[in-house]
Amino acid sequence: MDKQQLIEQIKKKESFLCVGLDSDIEKLPKHLQNAEDPVFEFNKQIIQATNKYAVAYKLNTAFYEANGINGWISFEKTVKYILNNYPEMFIIADAKRGDIGNTSKMYAKCFFNELNCHAVTVAPYMGEDSVSPFLEYKDNWTILLGLTSNKGADDFQFLGEEELYKKVIKKATQWATDKQLMIVVGATRPQMLTDIRKIANNYFLLVPGVGAQGGSLQEVAKYGMNKDCGLLVNSSRGIIFADTSENFAKVAEEKSANIQQEMSALLKEHKVVE
Amino acid sequence: MDKQQLIEQIKKKESFLCVGLDSDIEKLPKHLQNAEDPVFEFNKQIIQATNKYAVAYKLNTAFYEANGINGWISFEKTVKYILNNYPEMFIIADAKRGDIGNTSKMYAKCFFNELNCHAVTVAPYMGEDSVSPFLEYKDNWTILLGLTSNKGADDFQFLGEEELYKKVIKKATQWATDKQLMIVVGATRPQMLTDIRKIANNYFLLVPGVGAQGGSLQEVAKYGMNKDCGLLVNSSRGIIFADTSENFAKVAEEKSANIQQEMSALLKEHKVVE
Repeated sequence: MDKQQLIEQIKKKESFLCVGLDSDIEKLPKHLQNAEDPVFEFNKQIIQATNKYAVAYKLNTAFYEANGINGWISFEKTVKYILNNYPEMFIIADAKRGDIGNTSKMYAKCFFNELNCHAVTVAPYMGEDSVSPFLEYKDNWTILLGLTSNKGADDFQFLGEEELYKKVIKKATQWATDKQLMIVVGATRPQMLTDIRKIANNYFLLVPGVGAQGGSLQEVAKYGMNKDCGLLVNSSRGIIFADTSENFAKVAEEKSANIQQEMSALLKEHKVVE
Repeated sequence: MDKQQLIEQIKKKESFLCVGLDSDIEKLPKHLQNAEDPVFEFNKQIIQATNKYAVAYKLNTAFYEANGINGWISFEKTVKYILNNYPEMFIIADAKRGDIGNTSKMYAKCFFNELNCHAVTVAPYMGEDSVSPFLEYKDNWTILLGLTSNKGADDFQFLGEEELYKKVIKKATQWATDKQLMIVVGATRPQMLTDIRKIANNYFLLVPGVGAQGGSLQEVAKYGMNKDCGLLVNSSRGIIFADTSENFAKVAEEKSANIQQEMSALLKEHKVVE
């Protein structure tokens, strides 16, 4: 999916919501626990309930890997299900990979060729040659960690006169254009989006941390939205585990519809849609 | 496997060699390509050929993930094979994971509980709460990226008056003792080991980059060895793909035996063994 297609989806649905399928098997509704593949069954129902209100799904690989081989089967089935039934959705593997060149090449092959995701998140610590093998897939997206939303972000990301996270984002904009690179920016520090927009004005930002992690959608839009929207805001637990009874999909639908309404208003306020 | 047991193995075998099972399916000897599980068959023969000369095996997850579900089956079978047949070997999942707390917790569960590896490599960019869920497994090892051996290491790891990699290593020594934390230090910059030893004298260092990546074993030992050895030096391609004919295991055995001989001499020179 290219940038223009993503922007069209955002305008059409008046939403920049990414639903995070952090489908922790231990948190699934009880009545699904006996399904043949509980995680896939859960994801399927979440996707059916939320696809009208979202433009992207983000599968956090950790929650699948934790279930071993079965987890990877659930991952693969979920991606296939989305591609087959909702081909307009943008699919992100939130894997935070990164290694020396010949190894990153294998990760890129895994997520782009084997698993057919549109995008993968990548860690910056090892520098350009750990990222460039992902960028060789020109029709896919590389999403680099810039500023994360967790407490530990303070440990290293703010070091230096010019903070490390800014240096990372600056470098990244030299590695690739906004047509194949996005940047992860945590929602818990929305005011920093102003500085980031000076460095990476046209780049899409993937913003986790709204909802359970405490970020504010209003603030993120205020400081981070550009003329094309330029944001994918992720919510995971706040949607998928808002209710864990048999009613979970209905509640997930309501939660995502509420966020979409708020996003629609913000897109109008910032004149991305009329 | 605890620190004392690892040191005992090093002394007993007079080796601090870690064999990297970067078993790229496309590089396997032709005669194995029709095996039911070519990667596992390859690994098994490499392990049989090299276990006398090595103390650790490092499975780089990328090369397994790249084969999808079959890759994870090969990974799991390889770990089980080592645990059952060579219980004295230290097993590292070279995964370079790291994410917010609840996600890192899932990765830790994956590698320590599901896959039964002794150790996993972790990326530092997201700070303490991305690492601490691994450290909760007191009987396992967390191996944090410090200074990597690739060209891209120059992009960020040397930033700051006190270089980022030193800050990372300093912080890490506050997070955990040398009984459950090791640090990755690239062999292509052996003189920096002197500085690293000032910060992390008693910690084991996992040193990739000897062999195909150009590092020198002599130099690594000169600057990095401590009284307990304190080093695990990894070689992957230089051993496992030294020969890709039907003779591959025999050549891998010779290559690992040569390295072990060199290591034995270095351990004596530095008075780790008599």
